[in-house]
This record gives sequence, structure tokens and C-alpha cells, in this order.
Amino acid sequence: MKNRKLLMIPGPVEFTPEVLRAMGMPTTSHVAPAFVEVFGQALERLRRVFLCPGGQPFILAGTGTLAMDTAAANLVEPGDRALVVNTGYFSDRFASILERYGAQVTQVSAPAVGDAPGLESVEAALRAQSFKVMTLTHVDTSTAVGVSGLADLAALARQAGALVLVDGVCSVAGEELRMDEWGVDLALTASQKAIGVPPGLALVMAGPRAMEAFRRRRSPVGSYYSDWSHWLPIMQAYEARRPSYFGTPPVNLIWALDVSLGQILEEGMDARFARHRRLSQAFKAAVHALGLEQVPVRAGVTAVTLTAPYYPHGVDASLLSHVAAAGVIVAGGLHPQIRDRYFRVGHMGAVTTSDILTTVGAIEQGLARVGYRFELGAGLAAAQRVLAA
Amino acid sequence: MKNRKLLMIPGPVEFTPEVLRAMGMPTTSHVAPAFVEVFGQALERLRRVFLCPGGQPFILAGTGTLAMDTAAANLVEPGDRALVVNTGYFSDRFASILERYGAQVTQVSAPAVGDAPGLESVEAALRAQSFKVMTLTHVDTSTAVGVSGLADLAALARQAGALVLVDGVCSVAGEELRMDEWGVDLALTASQKAIGVPPGLALVMAGPRAMEAFRRRRSPVGSYYSDWSHWLPIMQAYEARRPSYFGTPPVNLIWALDVSLGQILEEGMDARFARHRRLSQAFKAAVHALGLEQVPVRAGVTAVTLTAPYYPHGVDASLLSHVAAAGVIVAGGLHPQIRDRYFRVGHMGAVTTSDILTTVGAIEQGLARVGYRFELGAGLAAAQRVLAA
Repeated sequence: MKNRKLLMIPGPVEFTPEVLRAMGMPTTSHVAPAFVEVFGQALERLRRVFLCPGGQPFILAGTGTLAMDTAAANLVEPGDRALVVNTGYFSDRFASILERYGAQVTQVSAPAVGDAPGLESVEAALRAQSFKVMTLTHVDTSTAVGVSGLADLAALARQAGALVLVDGVCSVAGEELRMDEWGVDLALTASQKAIGVPPGLALVMAGPRAMEAFRRRRSPVGSYYSDWSHWLPIMQAYEARRPSYFGTPPVNLIWALDVSLGQILEEGMDARFARHRRLSQAFKAAVHALGLEQVPVRAGVTAVTLTAPYYPHGVDASLLSHVAAAGVIVAGGLHPQIRDRYFRVGHMGAVTTSDILTTVGAIEQGLARVGYRFELGAGLAAAQRVLAA
Repeated sequence: MKNRKLLMIPGPVEFTPEVLRAMGMPTTSHVAPAFVEVFGQALERLRRVFLCPGGQPFILAGTGTLAMDTAAANLVEPGDRALVVNTGYFSDRFASILERYGAQVTQVSAPAVGDAPGLESVEAALRAQSFKVMTLTHVDTSTAVGVSGLADLAALARQAGALVLVDGVCSVAGEELRMDEWGVDLALTASQKAIGVPPGLALVMAGPRAMEAFRRRRSPVGSYYSDWSHWLPIMQAYEARRPSYFGTPPVNLIWALDVSLGQILEEGMDARFARHRRLSQAFKAAVHALGLEQVPVRAGVTAVTLTAPYYPHGVDASLLSHVAAAGVIVAGGLHPQIRDRYFRVGHMGAVTTSDILTTVGAIEQGLARVGYRFELGAGLAAAQRVLAA
């Protein structure tokens, strides 16, 4: 691992040394008293991180897509109607998953890539038909589009009798999300994002109304592995500090999760949201000062946890190798319609002010290397003005 | 982690320091060239460990149950007939999973707990009806029953036109399993067993006939997350040393997997099978010398990778805490019919002769502590005679 570079993609992100140490610890039995305590504590802590005191947490071996799969598979029955508020690639995916489990999916689409549907169009859709669930992608990892006014959207859906499911993969523990206060019935994420743990865990928090809908379902869950019937007794047992078996829990990842959740709660959720906002503003100010446009079309639809700048005129994806040569890994585009025209920078989890400056510095060096004309240092200065404020 | 104990359960097992070091390494991007190489190499190495040169490997974030889920979900369509050769708890589970995806399941059951169905009864079932798939649990983790004559059973099924699916969770890379030579169409395992990697990976090897059946299916796969349509292009891309995205791969676990597969292949499959056999014989000789019966009713149905001794008369599960106090963690019973009457000892993966002696020693100390009358040292001597042979 010579020449280790700073990892500033939208996940996996940089993890703390304590989290990595837990990953590399000799693996304990999944029924060892010390592990039972750690698993139970992680479940309790997850509730505080999701700000959902009455929620039922699920910690499963899998990716973020598994978390989405469990939400759809357990809450939708064949023929149920689902409304997808579509803000990009991962909203498309939620729609596909819902359809796989038999939902009739209606989508409210954004006017263009980089935009989000307005409150009025969601309201109109909720008036036109009744829905069992409405899904929102809090932050679309492919475009950096963030849904703002989530509490208002959730209120509309609840008034219309729909459960509110939030894909928080690129948001939970970074972007402000207050499940209980905002009326969100289920939120989900993956470990390698703002939660700050290497990839391999699907994390779901189901509120009381979601669990009630699950208990009332009449048909079996379409997926065996995703079926909460198997996992709910396990989560309840470990939280009661009793071991129980359905599948072997990913022991090292759960030790690491508990360490990271402890660090998150030590910082405090409000302070954590504020840190993410400040660093995001600093980075976005730098991007603007360098003359780069962003995929989100306006501030109201812009995520906190990541930034998606368009390449400036005359610059293409070859920029990224120069940024890497300058010490920072950023990610290429993902949304099929604009894939080659933009890049993505994740700034979440354990991200620091020095990471922001390092990243802006590396992007400036890359831009200079590919012949883009700009005032060297302008990005750093713009970031610095936000950071010093 | 003071007083760290030796972990001799049927998974997670003890892992090598190199594997644990890979687990705790700073996480790379899932599209970093170094990781792409490691993922590609792990896929290639997996083929050699499963002894299936023409197979298609899948490395997924999940548990062993996910591996079973993908096998059933992708190879069975609603209405297909499946034959389950039932040797215990995990055969029951395979039947449940197959039913979830619409299979009509016929089971050939063992005459009693601890036994396996005979070749004749499997042959009779295959004659009575045609089946799309036949499943075998190579080693039932709940009872230590191992299916011997797997090649003969596979040949029967193939002659009858059925695909042969082997649950190798407690077998692959420990128990002798030669997929290609024995005519096995799919085998699966989980990382925390003889493959020697902390829990969190589902590993599947699908042979050419299984992949052909998958390609010919007419209905969509019942589970979204398990659907090979999503994962196959990803596995093919990484093996061609190109990054590709469907879900974020569990980066650290895959680095660790590649390290472990390298160590397995360095030992060599034949040598590895022989080591597992020798250590298993030594441990079973010790158990016998101590006067303990085993759950498997005879040598022909006894697994190599683990041992399930009954508690002797007058001894109960409280024995296990005394064994733990003597430094070794073993597992309690799992099969519901006999759960409190036996315990389980896993000896697979990086297990050594000294681990066997340590474990026998701790069991002797535990037995002495609970007042069981036996000749102290008799177990150690019996193991030693096998080890020194």
C-alpha cells in the first residue's frame, strides 16, 4: 500500500483507525458474550443515529441494495401501488425492486437530470391515486441531487395514507435526517457511507407504522433472504443480549459498526450534521470559484454529503487520473445520460477540513495539468473562506 | 481481548494473521486498479478451490443462506420439482428456500437424526418423478452428518436429468469436494468456514449446466438482490480486470478472501483435504477414547470438518463453560430434536495439530470438572496416536 491516496468517492470513504482496528481483530464467535453485547449495543445506537427512538433496526450482511430489497420485499404485496419520487439512478433502482415484488409503480420524475420533482407534482400524484408506499432517494449518489423539504413530502404522503420509505444510502449520519420528527416510516443505508464502516452491511430502520404494515401482510415475502420474519427475532434477541441464530452475523463488520456508531454519537448528531454542511459548503464554494458547474440545477436540490461537478469546457474524464496522481481518488460519473461529463466527490463520515483542502488542491493540480485556464489557488481560497468563517 | 480463547466452533473459525491483516487494511475504492486485480484473482482462485475449471464464480456480500437463496432463486421456476436429500437442519432450510421460489419439493429423509438417506432411496425418488434440481447438504453443520458417495448420488441425479446442487457451507476447502470430476452443477459456501475468512461473504460456483439452466429460464428471478442477471456481468467484468458497478463489493472481505485463497492453493487441495482428514480422525479418536458417542450414527455418514459428540451420561451443556474456562470455545447443539444432548467442534480452515490437542485437553479438563469419570489423558493419547502415525 505505498503511496496511499485519500479516498474521496461517495463510498467507501475514509474510515477511522479505530474502525479499521476492529475490522482486523481476531474474529469472535457470533454467540460470544462480548459479541452479543456489541451487537445489542450497535442496534440501540443505530436507533439514536437514525433519530428514530421507536424504530426496529436491522443489521444484515449485504449491500445497500439489499437494504432496499428488504424494504420493498417486506412492505409491498403483489398489486400494491407504490409512488417513486424519482431523482436519478437509485430512484430507478427502487422502482425496479418494487416492481420485482409485484408493486404497481407510479413515478414522479424530475423535469431534468440534476433536478428533483416539486412538492406540487408529488401532491398531485398522491391525490390522483392511493399508494401503500412512497419512496424518496434522500441523496442520489449518481447525481448529488438531494431531496430537500423531506418533512413536507413525508407529511403529504402520510396524509394520503402512504408509508414513507427513504433511501438514505448516501445520507444517514451525514445529511440531516430526523426519522421520527419528520414522519419517515423507514430509512436505510449501507455501512461504507457516512456511517463510516467498510462495505458489507445493509442497515435498515423500520418505524412503528412500517412494522405494523409488515405484520399485517397476507402473502409471504417474495425473497427468502430478505424476509424480516427470519431476522426480526434475531435482532430482538441480540438487543435483549441473548444470542440467536438465523445466519451467521458478519462479526468483524458489526464490531467495526459499533465502534463507528460510538464515535458518531460522541460527536453528536447535530454537530455531525453541522460539520457535514460546513465542509460541503467549503468544497462547493471551491468548485464554484474554479468555474465548474454542478449537476444539481440549484441549491435547493443539492446534497450535503457529495458534490457532482461537471468537467469544464475542454476537459474530460482524463482529469481524474491527474487528480489521483496528486493524491486524491474521486469518482467518475454514474448517471447514464451524462456519465462522461461530470465527476463525483464524496465528503462524509470521518471527513475533515484538511481532507477538503487536500481534495481541492489535488483538483486544482489536475486541472492545471490538463491545460484548463484558471487562477491557481482560487479554489483553496474559496474553501478557506468558508472554513474560517 | 485479554484471555483470548481458541475458537473451535463450526464457523467462524480461527483465521490466519495475514487474513486478519487484510481485513484491517485501509479500504480501497472498489474501482481502484489494485482492488480490481484482487477481485479478479479471487474469482479465478475460487474456481481452483472448488475444483471446477469451467464454473462461474459469484462473490457476494451476504451469509451462507444468501448463497443458498441465489441457487434456488436463479435455478428454480414456479412449478419446478426439486428433490431434497435431507440430512438435517440445513437440508430443511434448503427445502424452505426452494418452496419460497415456487418449487414443488420432495424430500428423501434420513431414517433418524444423525443418519443420511441411502443411495437406494434417492434412486427410488429419482425414478418416481423427474426433477429440475436435486440438493445435497455435503456436511450438515447442525449434526456433523456428512454425505459420502456424493459422486454416485450426483451421477444418479444427472442420469435422471436433474441439476446437482451442493450446500458446501461446512465443506468447501476442507471436506473433499471435486465439483467437476464428481458431476456437481453448483456448490456454495460462506466465508467463515473452511475458506478461512471472517463472516460476510456468500460464495457460489455454478457449473456450465447450471448457467445454461439459468439462461433458459422464462420467468423473472423471484428475488431482486439474488438475481444473477445483476451480478453475472459484474463477476465477468472484474475477472476481465475491468471495474463495474451493481452493488459496492465488500472490499476488505474480498482482499481477505484473496489472501486466504492464495494460502489454500499454496497448501494444495489434495494436501488440504488430507490434513483435514487426519486432524478429524485424531479428534474423533479422542472423543471415542473418552467414551463419548457421536451424533452421526456410523463412519459412512460422518463429516470431516466437524465433530458432534453427545454429552456422556450425567453431563449437560454446562460442560461447555468449563471447556471455555480451559481456553477453548466449542458450540452447543443446534438440531431442535436433540439440541441439549450434544455439542459441536469445528476443525477446519487453518486448524493445526496443536489446536486439536489444545481442544482435546480443554474438553478433558471440562469433563473432569463436571465430575465425569474417565482416564485423564486418554483422549490426548488417542489423538496423539493418530497424529504421530
